[in-house]
Amino acid sequence: MMDRLIENIERCGAPVVVGLDPTLEIIPEKMLADSAKSFNESPEAAAFAMLKYNREIINAVADIVPAVKPNIAFYERYGLDGIRAYTMTIEYAKGRGLMVIGDIKRGDIGSTAAAYAGHIEPAPLFGRKFELWNEDAVTLNPYLGEDSVAPFLDVLKDRDKGVFILVKTSNKGSADIQDLMVGERPLYEHVAGLVSAWGEGEGLMGEKGYSKVGAVAGATHPEVGARLRELMPHTFFLVPGYGAQGAGAKDIKGFFDSKGSGAIVNSSRGIIGAWKSEGKGAGHVGKAARAAALRMIEEIGAEL
Amino acid sequence: MMDRLIENIERCGAPVVVGLDPTLEIIPEKMLADSAKSFNESPEAAAFAMLKYNREIINAVADIVPAVKPNIAFYERYGLDGIRAYTMTIEYAKGRGLMVIGDIKRGDIGSTAAAYAGHIEPAPLFGRKFELWNEDAVTLNPYLGEDSVAPFLDVLKDRDKGVFILVKTSNKGSADIQDLMVGERPLYEHVAGLVSAWGEGEGLMGEKGYSKVGAVAGATHPEVGARLRELMPHTFFLVPGYGAQGAGAKDIKGFFDSKGSGAIVNSSRGIIGAWKSEGKGAGHVGKAARAAALRMIEEIGAEL
Repeated sequence: MMDRLIENIERCGAPVVVGLDPTLEIIPEKMLADSAKSFNESPEAAAFAMLKYNREIINAVADIVPAVKPNIAFYERYGLDGIRAYTMTIEYAKGRGLMVIGDIKRGDIGSTAAAYAGHIEPAPLFGRKFELWNEDAVTLNPYLGEDSVAPFLDVLKDRDKGVFILVKTSNKGSADIQDLMVGERPLYEHVAGLVSAWGEGEGLMGEKGYSKVGAVAGATHPEVGARLRELMPHTFFLVPGYGAQGAGAKDIKGFFDSKGSGAIVNSSRGIIGAWKSEGKGAGHVGKAARAAALRMIEEIGAEL
Repeated sequence: MMDRLIENIERCGAPVVVGLDPTLEIIPEKMLADSAKSFNESPEAAAFAMLKYNREIINAVADIVPAVKPNIAFYERYGLDGIRAYTMTIEYAKGRGLMVIGDIKRGDIGSTAAAYAGHIEPAPLFGRKFELWNEDAVTLNPYLGEDSVAPFLDVLKDRDKGVFILVKTSNKGSADIQDLMVGERPLYEHVAGLVSAWGEGEGLMGEKGYSKVGAVAGATHPEVGARLRELMPHTFFLVPGYGAQGAGAKDIKGFFDSKGSGAIVNSSRGIIGAWKSEGKGAGHVGKAARAAALRMIEEIGAEL
């Protein structure tokens, strides 16, 4: 999967992923009201409005970025209907040729992790196989250690899928645990070592120098980028924190390798909420998102 | 919520929670086949069989234990239908008077964590409020730090809900990160300090000496129990690892306080799979689970 992601990034000339994290606040009033009317002001109305909004964003960026990243939390908030909107968003994005990174941040002990691995492998049922989630890659939380990741690695050996494991997240609270000093180094560097080693297992390395096991490292810590790039030469980075979270193009250079590969930068609110933050009308949801994505691609391109 | 949990534990005389983590392997063949027939061998068939199985377990233990703990991973594996079985299991268990700890192990940055907090607070929609998940408490992963937990703490101040934050998990891989030495102490003791401090916030302490912010600490590390009990005098423990994972009654004493309170011990496969591991027929699902739960209650009671 990482080879395919790199190919798509090269084709688009855009190491950029659009975070599909819609809140009802950024959905135009009329779109939400129409959905509320159609679905009788139910949670399904919220979920349908999110899906409709996502479709506008996807249609607007499908030819200029390689991937989208829906964070399942924003859908899970609206219960079953929300999760249905998550799976329909995945299918719609894939239908438009986009790769999908499911930002699920799951992590549990071995036997339970094997159940979560259903996100990237079909469930065998009654002699058939059901691909029920179908993300191309998902994010994982490493706090429970190797056996929490192993069932995913087993899947990756045989399938064109990927994972991105949290190493250093983009939020302020990331310092509370991830920055604790373990000997001479912060904890996240130890986690980086583990993630890098997990990614070197048989059948995991791609043809473009990167493993199917990637890492999440936040753009809000630019000094961390170059250090992790050095520590993890075969680990592809998913880099959140751009835009609304405060990081800019200058902050992300260190995450990339000398050939300008090795990382993909996420922006969520900065792109999907552009119509609103720029004070444009509800007719500009897609246009403003596309313009914001193109600006981001240009800004990043200028730095690499 | 922790006060209510303690009351229910006292009423039952059982600091025991039954983990509702059904796999298709432990569901009797006929129950699964009937469901496969009714739902045309679809994922819904798997989900319905899980729900039906859970109902038998719940009916069998509802009067002897205070709570059940479904792990959402086992449901999420079967997609939307699986998650529907999760929510229906919650409603059924609550209808039978049981408290429900949703083992979801979520964790994400602030704004996203607020979305996950929808598990324990209603979603405000179109001027109404929708309780879409309705667990009494959920488990959380602390790797992203304080801002990943804060939205849940905000909910706890106003609502009769709880959280259990992972400190030291029951699996072998827990050593990989949680046991790394930070100065003179393993990482999980630092996390214990954070969790304990988070639980001391305004409006979080209950009337029975324990905070609404609990911790997860695995029974498979008995030496850890007494140490954490000492470090976290106001933190209630959810203790997994009993039974199938290898820990016995002697291993859990340290997690409890001097009055025999302060912890609840989980067993999943050891109880819900008892009919099968004991070689009994499919008609014994509930009876064997009840007997296994009663044995566990007795074993633990003898140690406290």
